[in-house]
Amino acid sequence: MKPQTPVGWVCGFSLFEVSNLHGIYVVTDRELCPGRSHLDIAMAAVEAGACCVQLRDKSLGGRNLVELAKSIRCAVMGTKVKFIVNDRLDVALAVGADGVHLGQDDIPVSSARAVMGQTAIVGVSVGSVEEAVQGENDGASYVAVGPIFATATKSDAGNPVGLETITAVKNAVSVPVVAIGGIGVDNIASVAKAGADAAAVVSAVVCAPDMVEAVRALSREFEKGFSARCIGGN
Amino acid sequence: MKPQTPVGWVCGFSLFEVSNLHGIYVVTDRELCPGRSHLDIAMAAVEAGACCVQLRDKSLGGRNLVELAKSIRCAVMGTKVKFIVNDRLDVALAVGADGVHLGQDDIPVSSARAVMGQTAIVGVSVGSVEEAVQGENDGASYVAVGPIFATATKSDAGNPVGLETITAVKNAVSVPVVAIGGIGVDNIASVAKAGADAAAVVSAVVCAPDMVEAVRALSREFEKGFSARCIGGN
Repeated sequence: MKPQTPVGWVCGFSLFEVSNLHGIYVVTDRELCPGRSHLDIAMAAVEAGACCVQLRDKSLGGRNLVELAKSIRCAVMGTKVKFIVNDRLDVALAVGADGVHLGQDDIPVSSARAVMGQTAIVGVSVGSVEEAVQGENDGASYVAVGPIFATATKSDAGNPVGLETITAVKNAVSVPVVAIGGIGVDNIASVAKAGADAAAVVSAVVCAPDMVEAVRALSREFEKGFSARCIGGN
Repeated sequence: MKPQTPVGWVCGFSLFEVSNLHGIYVVTDRELCPGRSHLDIAMAAVEAGACCVQLRDKSLGGRNLVELAKSIRCAVMGTKVKFIVNDRLDVALAVGADGVHLGQDDIPVSSARAVMGQTAIVGVSVGSVEEAVQGENDGASYVAVGPIFATATKSDAGNPVGLETITAVKNAVSVPVVAIGGIGVDNIASVAKAGADAAAVVSAVVCAPDMVEAVRALSREFEKGFSARCIGGN
């Protein structure tokens, strides 16, 4: 669906190309596996060739977040991995991250787009086709639909929306669709097959014995599902 | 003390003139007096001729803060009252506020200055001469020193630094000095006399039966202290 033209969003589509968002999108979490820092997780994601790393930490203040974000910025520098900051677009701007990821209760997408300009990545969490279409119209670079499956990572994530919502959202918007929530190596192929351009993972990576290998295994399974979708197989 | 030149801070001194920060600086709080909203407090500050209104709410998410900040932005529009957002420089940017106020644990002053440009107001809380000098060197437009007196408004405010710290900070920096912490109508003259360019108040306004009259009374007392300082009287 073609976006409308809110303030600061002039070209209709983001300069962030669909082809840049494909595969594994790693969201960091320093509480799921004590001893593993945001930077450890980000470095593993970079080494394994994830498409995106999102720094997510709701408990840290601005100063600590900026320091942390700077270190992750360095880890992705010179690679194709996009670095996205959850919620805090001020932190993203302060460190020169590639973009920001916003929830439905965070700063509105249209405001973030106006502040960050049209080349920045502005992603938004959605739980329905309506929210996805609204996100695209407001200038989102991608929509993250979920939770697809039940998840313990986010206590406020809501009820699972299922694979059919990935397909419905994919058919309703032009921007890339990221699936999130309860995705692991056993179900990631189904997510790709249902229409996701990328799969966001938290515990499947953060809690794995070998994070690099976990991302690679997820990636292989994702590509199987993606291939099946592209050739129309089962 | 002349600031150094961090990234994004090129002219040595902010374009925010000393003369713009004089008098009563109202910080909003919606919990001290239930039934009075941030906007109610801001409107009273504007009506009474405060120099600044700072929106402070650590519990609200980005979306609610943006909505609230937009309404306060409208309330100050066309007046000389500066509108400053606490902590969230992304919210300040999203609504076109005059600036941001940062604590020692928030985004660093130098980062905020680089992101917001040299005409924005970037204030910083300091508890000592050293922090004040650092704040100025990092590009702060003003320093807010405190807590001057004991205060119940902020549980993590630390021990009172006393009137003598206002004088010491005023002698150490070129940017305006705001005093904060436990300031009311009975002691505000002493704060002005000690060297403060402005006095930040929370409960003395928010909890007053008539907020407009409270700001006016505080302002009258502040000017008495300021005059005594200027003519060297006691």
